[in-house]
Amino acid sequence: MSHPGAMTDHRGANGKQGALPMSEIIFYTNPMSRGRIVRWMLEELGQPYETRVLAYGPQMKSPEYLAINPMGKVPALQHGEAVVTEAAACCAYLAAAFPEAGLAPEPGTPESAAYQRWMFFAAGPGEAAITNAHFNFSLPDDPQARGRAGYGSLEAVADALAAMLADGRDYVTGAAFSAADVYVGSQILWGRMLGSLPDRPGFADYAERLTARPAAVRAREIDDALMASSG
Amino acid sequence: MSHPGAMTDHRGANGKQGALPMSEIIFYTNPMSRGRIVRWMLEELGQPYETRVLAYGPQMKSPEYLAINPMGKVPALQHGEAVVTEAAACCAYLAAAFPEAGLAPEPGTPESAAYQRWMFFAAGPGEAAITNAHFNFSLPDDPQARGRAGYGSLEAVADALAAMLADGRDYVTGAAFSAADVYVGSQILWGRMLGSLPDRPGFADYAERLTARPAAVRAREIDDALMASSG
Repeated sequence: MSHPGAMTDHRGANGKQGALPMSEIIFYTNPMSRGRIVRWMLEELGQPYETRVLAYGPQMKSPEYLAINPMGKVPALQHGEAVVTEAAACCAYLAAAFPEAGLAPEPGTPESAAYQRWMFFAAGPGEAAITNAHFNFSLPDDPQARGRAGYGSLEAVADALAAMLADGRDYVTGAAFSAADVYVGSQILWGRMLGSLPDRPGFADYAERLTARPAAVRAREIDDALMASSG
Repeated sequence: MSHPGAMTDHRGANGKQGALPMSEIIFYTNPMSRGRIVRWMLEELGQPYETRVLAYGPQMKSPEYLAINPMGKVPALQHGEAVVTEAAACCAYLAAAFPEAGLAPEPGTPESAAYQRWMFFAAGPGEAAITNAHFNFSLPDDPQARGRAGYGSLEAVADALAAMLADGRDYVTGAAFSAADVYVGSQILWGRMLGSLPDRPGFADYAERLTARPAAVRAREIDDALMASSG
């Protein structure tokens, strides 16, 4: 499969360039997309991967790429025969596929419950509330409408995330960092940066813990450099 | 923990009543909620569970229940010390916690990629597009807005789900039924029933395969009976 004009960039987990023709993970992204979340996840994972940058517009809607993601959107991952789309799904897939990275908790534990709960909360009600607030979509002010919508309001989403952190835990599942922090944490980080999520006690400290991680720093640097070079 | 007025109902996976005081799984639901999805998952799982029905309104917003789900919504699961909310997360948690039920594919496989991809697609863009169509929220008709929203349109969501089934697969991950069919399938089933999702080739056959499953039949009967008795 070839993407005319797509930039290809072979990188190991340490962020250094190098030819890795045997790389099993192919990462389709654009540095101005939710692909930044998956880049961070890949850097946390520590597996080699190959980046293919797709421009918005025709390149993302080409037949070759639509065969990978019929929605014509990035990010997407290929891992051998496996194809994953949706940023949260990419994080969950990688964490489960590479247990040695320690980014997914043991199934059947309270940590796994928190992991699943907050991943789907962020991908579902969280994302919907933030997006709808951006477009000024407001639900009718009655409980039935809020029930139907699956999220209370942007304020309720911020409250729920704050309640998650309120017991003093460092990370989503407790003491240990996991893929849920990459995804849920990105929502809090982006929400603070873009002003799209109301601030709450605990968000600043949590954000600081996350942005200081070496993998998060590497991911930012890689995508910022791609933005600069494609701008 | 007690819920004044909450109906408690001990059931085994075969749908028969029976005292199961040692039941490890407690299922908080309302028969008119997304809890119906989780009921189906529990019936597929084959583990005993205890049902606690919560009425909409004050009971769902009681301090006792808010300690379990700060969003004050059902469904929620307690499994020992683990607490899970969000219907999709409940399905994913249970499938991973009880691997002997064979409802979650092996990590790192193409089946696992499809599983994660479509679970998060349904919980994220799928749910958002259906809900927003219900409330007549329409995105501005430009690619940037659609990119920001994370879903193209209700038509694009239906197209993506149809494309998933278009290779002739019986289930989300291929030949084998999984928890992804409970969750993604419920979205298609409800979409057809409520007219909230445009129809596509393949939906009717898929829906028929799902509704005929003994666990799906049992789940419907249990929740319909609860609705009748509480109405």
